[in-house]
Amino acid sequence: MKKAIGVFDSGVGGLTVVKELIRELPYEDIVYFGDTARVPYGIKSRETVIRFSIENVLFLLKQDIKLICVACNTSSSVALPLIKSHFKVPVVGVITPGVKEAVYASQNKRIGVIGTRATIKSRSYENEIKQLDPGVSVVAVSCPLFVPFVEEGWLSGKVVVEVARKYLEPLKRSGVDTVILGCTHYPLIKPVIKEVMGKQVTLIDSARQVAVEVKNILATEGLLNRGRLGRQKFYVSDNPEWFRSLAKRFLGKNVRDVKKV
Amino acid sequence: MKKAIGVFDSGVGGLTVVKELIRELPYEDIVYFGDTARVPYGIKSRETVIRFSIENVLFLLKQDIKLICVACNTSSSVALPLIKSHFKVPVVGVITPGVKEAVYASQNKRIGVIGTRATIKSRSYENEIKQLDPGVSVVAVSCPLFVPFVEEGWLSGKVVVEVARKYLEPLKRSGVDTVILGCTHYPLIKPVIKEVMGKQVTLIDSARQVAVEVKNILATEGLLNRGRLGRQKFYVSDNPEWFRSLAKRFLGKNVRDVKKV
Repeated sequence: MKKAIGVFDSGVGGLTVVKELIRELPYEDIVYFGDTARVPYGIKSRETVIRFSIENVLFLLKQDIKLICVACNTSSSVALPLIKSHFKVPVVGVITPGVKEAVYASQNKRIGVIGTRATIKSRSYENEIKQLDPGVSVVAVSCPLFVPFVEEGWLSGKVVVEVARKYLEPLKRSGVDTVILGCTHYPLIKPVIKEVMGKQVTLIDSARQVAVEVKNILATEGLLNRGRLGRQKFYVSDNPEWFRSLAKRFLGKNVRDVKKV
Repeated sequence: MKKAIGVFDSGVGGLTVVKELIRELPYEDIVYFGDTARVPYGIKSRETVIRFSIENVLFLLKQDIKLICVACNTSSSVALPLIKSHFKVPVVGVITPGVKEAVYASQNKRIGVIGTRATIKSRSYENEIKQLDPGVSVVAVSCPLFVPFVEEGWLSGKVVVEVARKYLEPLKRSGVDTVILGCTHYPLIKPVIKEVMGKQVTLIDSARQVAVEVKNILATEGLLNRGRLGRQKFYVSDNPEWFRSLAKRFLGKNVRDVKKV
């Protein structure tokens, strides 16, 4: 039995990361856990997000996995250092890969970050960007209504555009040329964000970079699978039907094997 | 020591009920529990909402209370029968009082109900209305974006009106003359709902009716307090600051004594 890659998120958003993992690492098995009984994390306190995240790691460790991907920006922002210091398994978050890509992409050294309230409050993106390049100026704003919009399927239309205009106003005003989509839900409303920010602004969706980072670690550690196409297993803490109905939107394909734990 | 009225909700919404309890029963102490670590309930499964609700009742029972008010439409819709059958303490939900008022108010016997997805799916309002008057026709729609709008402070403006227009379209089309606001958050966007539905439609906000029902039960059981103004204690499972910042919007006054448990 080959070991799998473990991925967790507060709900369905992390499936955008799973999609890229499948594309980048087609021979790997993936075990996904979505904490749908306690979703969303983005409006909750640091302490609570840390507690939930550690419980999720412990669940994944029971599934015979070789690497954990924290596919939730909120968890990555507030709980990653602690998870890394506590557990032996290699852990990849979604912040660093996005930051590297953004710093690389920005020409004018002005980067915008959008995310949930907890992610923005943690200043995790700002800190990582400054560490990589202290000369970059960062404008970070939280967009709390984007997650409910995406989960309700409001992915376009004048209402969403209007809300995006309000949220993104500070980014436009400060002339950023690069924006990090600091929440796994946001790639689904990328066209709206693009429309509001303008074509010349680069949008960084970290899912792809995360998959590349996972591949590098597995290669370095000699843990890559070979030989047969990987399988995916999905676990949720509530509402498997709801998860299944949203999964297609995030993953681009239907999921069958969803178990409630 | 006089016993208090226990009130629980998934978050802050139940404070609209507390507001009416204070007005109707100024001499009663109130202990409030808001399950802010697991908010929102409205998107979660029946089974999970029942489990959370029972945990909340058990917490309140430790606080020396004489009556429990389930100030959450989702909990009232899916967990009330079970809570009533399990526990000795008198329990009041938010469905029945609103239903009585709506059936009384409706002239054309067409009643609209709006609520969270879990509340609408439970058909609790429809069932209670039909039981009271089988001749009434009911149109029930879920409005999942209203809760995030209220919690983010988007209480008016063209975005909210636009979303309300979409949600309320089936109610308008069917010519209801009465609409039950089946979620404790909705009274805060009552002006928007009024604007969309039209002045001739009666909006039923059950908080006031709940307070009257609580008063009747306490009077009947000889449990009314007298002599000094009541006090309120607030407990939350997460984010006391967030709770405090929203409390004024719902309760109409600042709350001081908020403890995290």
